[in-house]
Amino acid sequence: MKHLLAVSICLVSLSLGAVPPQQHQVGEKNPPPLPPLQGFLAGSAQTERQWEEKFRAIPNTDNLREYMKLMSARPHHVGSPYDKQNAEWMLSKFKEWGWDAHIENFDVLFPTPKERRLELLEPTRFVAKLEEPPIDIDPTSNQQAEQLPPYNAYSIDGDVSGPLVYVNYGTRDDYEQLARLDVSVKGAIVIVRYGGSWRGIKPKVAAEHGALGCIIYSDPADDGYANGEVYPRGAWRNKDAVQRGSVTDTYFAGDPLTPGWGSVPGARRLEIKDSPLITKIPVLPISYSDAQPLLASIQGQVVPEKWRGALPLTYHLGPGPGKVHLVVKSNWDTKRLYDVIAKLPGAEAAGQWVMRGNHHDAWVNGASDPLSGMVAVLEEARALGELHKQGWRPKRTIIYAAWDGEEPGLLGSTEFLETHMEELQQHAVAYINSDNNSRGFLRVSGSHSLERFLNGVAHDIEDPEKHISVWDRAHLLRIADATGAEVRDELRKRADWRIRALGDGSDYASFLDHAGIAAVDIRFSGEGGEGQYHSIYDDFYWYTHFSDTQFIYGRALAQTAGTAIMRLADADLLPFDFVGQADTIKTYVKELERLFKSQQDEIRERNLELQEGVFSAISDPQKPTQPPARMETPPVISFAPLQNSSDALQKAAQRYDAALKNFPAGGFKANAATLTTLNERLYKSERLFLSEKGLPGRPWFKHQIYAPGAYTGYAVKTIPAVREAIEQYKWTEAQEGVTTVSDILQKEAASVNEAAAQLEQLISAH
Amino acid sequence: MKHLLAVSICLVSLSLGAVPPQQHQVGEKNPPPLPPLQGFLAGSAQTERQWEEKFRAIPNTDNLREYMKLMSARPHHVGSPYDKQNAEWMLSKFKEWGWDAHIENFDVLFPTPKERRLELLEPTRFVAKLEEPPIDIDPTSNQQAEQLPPYNAYSIDGDVSGPLVYVNYGTRDDYEQLARLDVSVKGAIVIVRYGGSWRGIKPKVAAEHGALGCIIYSDPADDGYANGEVYPRGAWRNKDAVQRGSVTDTYFAGDPLTPGWGSVPGARRLEIKDSPLITKIPVLPISYSDAQPLLASIQGQVVPEKWRGALPLTYHLGPGPGKVHLVVKSNWDTKRLYDVIAKLPGAEAAGQWVMRGNHHDAWVNGASDPLSGMVAVLEEARALGELHKQGWRPKRTIIYAAWDGEEPGLLGSTEFLETHMEELQQHAVAYINSDNNSRGFLRVSGSHSLERFLNGVAHDIEDPEKHISVWDRAHLLRIADATGAEVRDELRKRADWRIRALGDGSDYASFLDHAGIAAVDIRFSGEGGEGQYHSIYDDFYWYTHFSDTQFIYGRALAQTAGTAIMRLADADLLPFDFVGQADTIKTYVKELERLFKSQQDEIRERNLELQEGVFSAISDPQKPTQPPARMETPPVISFAPLQNSSDALQKAAQRYDAALKNFPAGGFKANAATLTTLNERLYKSERLFLSEKGLPGRPWFKHQIYAPGAYTGYAVKTIPAVREAIEQYKWTEAQEGVTTVSDILQKEAASVNEAAAQLEQLISAH
Repeated sequence: MKHLLAVSICLVSLSLGAVPPQQHQVGEKNPPPLPPLQGFLAGSAQTERQWEEKFRAIPNTDNLREYMKLMSARPHHVGSPYDKQNAEWMLSKFKEWGWDAHIENFDVLFPTPKERRLELLEPTRFVAKLEEPPIDIDPTSNQQAEQLPPYNAYSIDGDVSGPLVYVNYGTRDDYEQLARLDVSVKGAIVIVRYGGSWRGIKPKVAAEHGALGCIIYSDPADDGYANGEVYPRGAWRNKDAVQRGSVTDTYFAGDPLTPGWGSVPGARRLEIKDSPLITKIPVLPISYSDAQPLLASIQGQVVPEKWRGALPLTYHLGPGPGKVHLVVKSNWDTKRLYDVIAKLPGAEAAGQWVMRGNHHDAWVNGASDPLSGMVAVLEEARALGELHKQGWRPKRTIIYAAWDGEEPGLLGSTEFLETHMEELQQHAVAYINSDNNSRGFLRVSGSHSLERFLNGVAHDIEDPEKHISVWDRAHLLRIADATGAEVRDELRKRADWRIRALGDGSDYASFLDHAGIAAVDIRFSGEGGEGQYHSIYDDFYWYTHFSDTQFIYGRALAQTAGTAIMRLADADLLPFDFVGQADTIKTYVKELERLFKSQQDEIRERNLELQEGVFSAISDPQKPTQPPARMETPPVISFAPLQNSSDALQKAAQRYDAALKNFPAGGFKANAATLTTLNERLYKSERLFLSEKGLPGRPWFKHQIYAPGAYTGYAVKTIPAVREAIEQYKWTEAQEGVTTVSDILQKEAASVNEAAAQLEQLISAH
Repeated sequence: MKHLLAVSICLVSLSLGAVPPQQHQVGEKNPPPLPPLQGFLAGSAQTERQWEEKFRAIPNTDNLREYMKLMSARPHHVGSPYDKQNAEWMLSKFKEWGWDAHIENFDVLFPTPKERRLELLEPTRFVAKLEEPPIDIDPTSNQQAEQLPPYNAYSIDGDVSGPLVYVNYGTRDDYEQLARLDVSVKGAIVIVRYGGSWRGIKPKVAAEHGALGCIIYSDPADDGYANGEVYPRGAWRNKDAVQRGSVTDTYFAGDPLTPGWGSVPGARRLEIKDSPLITKIPVLPISYSDAQPLLASIQGQVVPEKWRGALPLTYHLGPGPGKVHLVVKSNWDTKRLYDVIAKLPGAEAAGQWVMRGNHHDAWVNGASDPLSGMVAVLEEARALGELHKQGWRPKRTIIYAAWDGEEPGLLGSTEFLETHMEELQQHAVAYINSDNNSRGFLRVSGSHSLERFLNGVAHDIEDPEKHISVWDRAHLLRIADATGAEVRDELRKRADWRIRALGDGSDYASFLDHAGIAAVDIRFSGEGGEGQYHSIYDDFYWYTHFSDTQFIYGRALAQTAGTAIMRLADADLLPFDFVGQADTIKTYVKELERLFKSQQDEIRERNLELQEGVFSAISDPQKPTQPPARMETPPVISFAPLQNSSDALQKAAQRYDAALKNFPAGGFKANAATLTTLNERLYKSERLFLSEKGLPGRPWFKHQIYAPGAYTGYAVKTIPAVREAIEQYKWTEAQEGVTTVSDILQKEAASVNEAAAQLEQLISAH
């Protein structure tokens, strides 16, 4: 008997540990109507599922269309009357839907064009048009009086002349190659194509290399006829369409005059000349019809093959003989922002805030960017308001935001965050962002503690065209795109798909990078929706002809993000997961080791080739190239602290995960106060990734796992203190970064361990 | 004492085995003035070196320029008066330089244009120009009366109309992708760009897929302004320049009416309709200015990114709406070829022939193709004649050839070879080919039994611009171009650089592929020399402005090939090496195993993805794609016979190599008859690679190690009976190929063993 009893106990404890709750209930004769929900006690999971299903039935594509039509009817950039009008209209809607809403204002620096001139002086004369003409068939394209003309916000004022040099995408690598090709941009004006990096990086790197001015254009190879028929016949950028955009430097986000504090009316402000965000040289964006005569005027060496665009000419490097005169002057005015903030109060844990946002300002009419995402957010709010009327009461407080001033530099979200920093760090559970949305596949990026949770949500949303789950569709795309059997193997074995890390590019950045609030970005894309980025033609006519024309992916976005918000707001135990987080961090550590090794190997190889005479042997005397500079071989960097600390985090994560498996098993009623404390520890775990001193040279960026690259802008650099140091050959700084990040990982591990202990206690107390 | 003695003997035998002869002679107080020469006895090596140095001082760049100016003065295609005149002029020069020379004639099928018409019928009308206009500054570009207009020789006559489909390079992979994109070419006329495969493959594959006609054009991305300024401002193809060329199928080389036998006047001939070489559908080449309206008329899906060309339009797949009418008619005449054959008789082994050739016919004026190589060959002949006058007497007979009719299909060389097959197989030691030559790096391809020998030659030639050896320069380029540390490591450790295997594209093909005569192709390239391939602008003005303008690489080519010819003609023991050959063959065997594995893996993966629903999940309903067909997983193929036979060859090669190291050691006088027999075995070793039945489906191609691909044309397929079968999913044929090739490798191994035994005996007899 003793023996048999022992076996039976063992079986029970196994099933407690490993089997999902509903299967467990089979024995209790409650057939499982729905799959389990992480973090929900057995009873509440059923209720949650029912409310979520009601929720997902509400969003309506006609509403999405109507919101977009209304909000994109006129240009609504920062400071425009229609920007304010949209904010006020949204405020009234939130209120109508039962939300506690208000508008919060900030006063920010927002330069607008005063003078823009670009002319080719030699060898022929040509004056750039710098205009986007109206198109008859497109009813909002003729609102010139209200449109912001093509320009790059925060370009310094300037009046410069010089020979042209073509610098490809204008990345640091491009300039290295230029040096090898013996071309200097000193005293020249660079012409650079959009792509390859965030646009603000282009004038920054150009200025670092001695250029006097910077002209950015959209090459049809990247963004024009090479990709498809041009507007209005097709979706793609036509010869006159220009990409506007901000070109601030990457030191911090938000108002360039209030780094780290809120630009509330009357706040202290830097002088414009003292802001490190303003460019060092004047910058102007142009269309490819304006670029073509400039590019045709350049001679000198023919560009490397990968630098070729799709204009019908031979791309040369220069300098000159083409010489241009560039004038850029702005009205350096302060403009008022209108952030719309709406709340549904939490019934049980009102001090825990689940946040959601999208920006509402645009460069011009902005149907795709940002309204395609904004209208989904509004429809979510309407649906949640509807549920609330029907009696649903979220445990936690839900806050929806429609940010203003995202386009110039994440102004609305950053100034809000900086103003409310303390309370947000205390209360914010997570922030879910979206922005422009189109057709295709669900793309999720963000904090890896929410990876498992978001995978769970994605399983519950149906793709509107394929009628499989959006998880399945995204998973199968990953298999299709995978290179190599090893990658596919992992995709097939891993329960969750990996989510990408966040860099920069929308309003999540300040939440995550500056405040350590777990953040994710959710959108659908991959099947169209490109082609008019930041031009006047990104409007209702274009969107309803060439993007998510039926608004079914807009509805899917509302369903996905709304489900996530509800689940976060209602969970008994917040669905943070550290196993996926630790696993991801371990892949970063491996990447860093490989990166360092490859930098070492490259330097050694280059030095050997210099010694062998490779570079002089392959230099064509008719197109001479310069050998690269000799570098010292890097000293050894020890990655052991990172390996040890990520191991510690993994171990703690596994302990927490083991405890978690027992959490909902018995359907016990946990002590509410204890749960609240544990939940607070969970959502504050992301704060532990902050370092007070911030990243080397960028103190505003405090997160030590994720940051936009100092020289990529949009693209993320994970464990940036180490990665960027290695990339830039700063070996001492890299070793220091290892120490900083390892300490932080140890703290995170300790906290996760503590959370596991609390959870174990909770369960054993039951 | 006994112990010491043993050590001393051991040292001596080591030095006998491993140290080069001149170092060995140090002890004999003959300081080595020059490095060793493989295959030369100690005394003859010195003499050889002295004659070679004299030889290399003779070639003169002014002569090269004068020969080219004269021979390119008028169009000299097959059947033209100037083709004959050039042949007769060369004959007179060979004679003047002391050679025993004659002209050998063949009568071959050579169609020339009778009617060419191409018009766009819908949606707009456009008539293609099909002409290359004269350019004022270029004095030979106005010889319209004598020029062959742009056409593809051996296109079948036809008059067809149909919608256009764009098929990229028109390879089999491209059609597979088209099928996935749900586009068929049945009943359509394909428009295909030059590149990616030999041009004859394009109509072949198009016809296999049901197309009615084929238009081939030069896209500026591959061959036009994207690469550099266009002619006459720069070297590159301008909007009107057209690439002519033959489009025969790949069953055999030579006259399409005399497969396997010589087209001597009066020979038996197939009927034209029975020749498998004529295309199945009409084909016409056009310029990119003629192509642009046609491409602009195509709608339907936008092409995959890699299919985009550089014309300023959106490339679509079609079919239509653009519809064209294509008419191609030829005069199907027989034309006379003029091969110039010149001999310097061998003094000791007159029955062993060392051969050298280049073609002299062109599509039009042909300064680069073929005269840049032809004039170097002539200058070699003058220099060798000069040495002969000074008393130099080659051991072996040297035969120089200026081939006619290469452009239409290697006619002159193939008909010569087929006519003299028996005696060439008996007497030919090796054939060294060249063709167009430009600036840059020495490129050597060919039989790997000559790899070590040609590396030795390359060490002795100075690069005219860098003043390092052409070996060093080519070696350093390989390091610069290498991808990965492993490849660079091998490059640095291996004494010889690897030479490439030969496919098709010039007159070496019949020698190697049909007759098993060891062949190599030598040329300089990599720094210009492109841009006017097969257009009227490939002329003296173009060459002397944009290619090897000083003719210094022409001189280097004469020095390189002439040195190789002299060394082959004078060696006591022919410098064939089997270690490099076996090593190369073993790399091919490994490639085949990897290829099979990857085919297996791909099929398994594809089947799994079909089952998972990957293809339907990623198909955009607005741009639907078709899933690929399910395939059976391939059965296991045993590569053991290839592994064993290549091991056997390697072992035999090492044995021969060990014997070889002792060959010149003592400076012994070998028995001349024995050496002659051994030499004959050596040069006939390449014959052993032939199989009487030839390749599957291509019996004329008998070589089992090298062949042009049936679906690549130019590009080589090594061990083709196995490789092409695997590529085409013919598993049984692949296993049969393994058996055939393994048997052949065993025969080669046995012969090399026998050669080693003979050499060992020779040395021990000394």
